[in-house]
Amino acid sequence: MRNIRLLLQYDGSAYHGWQEQPNGITIQGLIEAGLEEITGSEVDIIGAGRTDAGVHALGQCACFRTSTGLAPETLKKALNAKLPPDIRIIAAEEVDDSFHARFSATGKSYVYILQTGRVTSPFLHKYLWSLPYSPDIRAMRDAATHLLGAHDFSAFRGSGCGARTTVRTIRSASIEEKEGMEFMSMGMAGKFIVFRFEGNAFLRHMVRNMVGTLVDVGRRKTEPEAIAEILAKCDRRLAGPTAPAQGLFLERIYYD
Amino acid sequence: MRNIRLLLQYDGSAYHGWQEQPNGITIQGLIEAGLEEITGSEVDIIGAGRTDAGVHALGQCACFRTSTGLAPETLKKALNAKLPPDIRIIAAEEVDDSFHARFSATGKSYVYILQTGRVTSPFLHKYLWSLPYSPDIRAMRDAATHLLGAHDFSAFRGSGCGARTTVRTIRSASIEEKEGMEFMSMGMAGKFIVFRFEGNAFLRHMVRNMVGTLVDVGRRKTEPEAIAEILAKCDRRLAGPTAPAQGLFLERIYYD
Repeated sequence: MRNIRLLLQYDGSAYHGWQEQPNGITIQGLIEAGLEEITGSEVDIIGAGRTDAGVHALGQCACFRTSTGLAPETLKKALNAKLPPDIRIIAAEEVDDSFHARFSATGKSYVYILQTGRVTSPFLHKYLWSLPYSPDIRAMRDAATHLLGAHDFSAFRGSGCGARTTVRTIRSASIEEKEGMEFMSMGMAGKFIVFRFEGNAFLRHMVRNMVGTLVDVGRRKTEPEAIAEILAKCDRRLAGPTAPAQGLFLERIYYD
Repeated sequence: MRNIRLLLQYDGSAYHGWQEQPNGITIQGLIEAGLEEITGSEVDIIGAGRTDAGVHALGQCACFRTSTGLAPETLKKALNAKLPPDIRIIAAEEVDDSFHARFSATGKSYVYILQTGRVTSPFLHKYLWSLPYSPDIRAMRDAATHLLGAHDFSAFRGSGCGARTTVRTIRSASIEEKEGMEFMSMGMAGKFIVFRFEGNAFLRHMVRNMVGTLVDVGRRKTEPEAIAEILAKCDRRLAGPTAPAQGLFLERIYYD
């Protein structure tokens, strides 16, 4: 059996997330159905990140085993012809038998986008969380430093998270303000805040819960220093709300 | 009666264009229905540009007369609450009685986006024309110079165009290559070509027919110099195909 790795992008707006489910159309389900039609046999694909409903991906990775003799480039083209245009295979390649999209990953990065206090452009509304107020960037940056490093992230873990261990390492956390966004080479007015997190791995809803908590800090509901205590107490009720799925992008999966 | 001017943006993907029609949901129709609910009386709005089905707008202008006492900012908020998120009122203001969204306009600009030879990002596919080859930029630029100035644009006029005169003035035409696009602060790989046209006014399908003809030049089907002859002969059959609606954006309406 050959081992094939896929690099893919998707607009998650229309889907019930990555992972196959009894009800609802999922990205994994559509890709498996496409591959089964192309190869004529059952295919199980493994995604590096199991994104939730409405979450987008710029650089999701997945792998699957197949006995087909088709070249990876042919598989990519055939699969793109079957998939809807909001799911695209960017690259396909044959990889070593030992490669596993999830277990071989050494890190992941996520981006989360906020817009503050303005009419949201019709071209961007599916890709951000729109806030009626402007959270304090400096306070959020102070708070984010407490998230850096290895911690037990139980307090930021979503319900239904099946991970056996809850210690994760955040390698970098940045928060940038942007005046306007570029879209199709044209300027979109507005004030945006771009969060970026890189870490070895993330628990379910962890990025969205970190963003929701940081926004609580930015609006002075929580002190920046409280983050250390929230982490230490491992109590989900102490952290802030889960930020909406639509502002979240799985940016990249890192492999050695 | 007060005269109110609206500045608006829309993603045209889901609509049958700007102008009200017996069948199909239009942007004008939705805005009029919203305003009628808000003001309690019949409203006729006049758009500066009657964009076709699937065409987008970054800076469409419209005006309407109303006897409502509501402040423009209140009208804007109430209307945005009724409209779907892919149509947004960016600004509303009371203007002089003599203002007319179409007749007062002194110019308009349109942007058209091409992508060449690569998998199209799921985030961009509704906003560009994807070509399997790379048209020659220099040849297209040479050809575009023949479009500048005042000409009878009958050869670039779509069927069903109701304009009484066919002379229009193109004030600027630019064609830029771009490596990658920025989307939500993240980079999207690919090769893009951005056309921008500014003129006093445009006939129906004129921008899409100019782009289709320029692409024929870029793929060596038509010589750059042939544009002058196509214009002079005023024969639609001599010009190239109509480029797809989805790559076109009404960028801005100019007023004195």
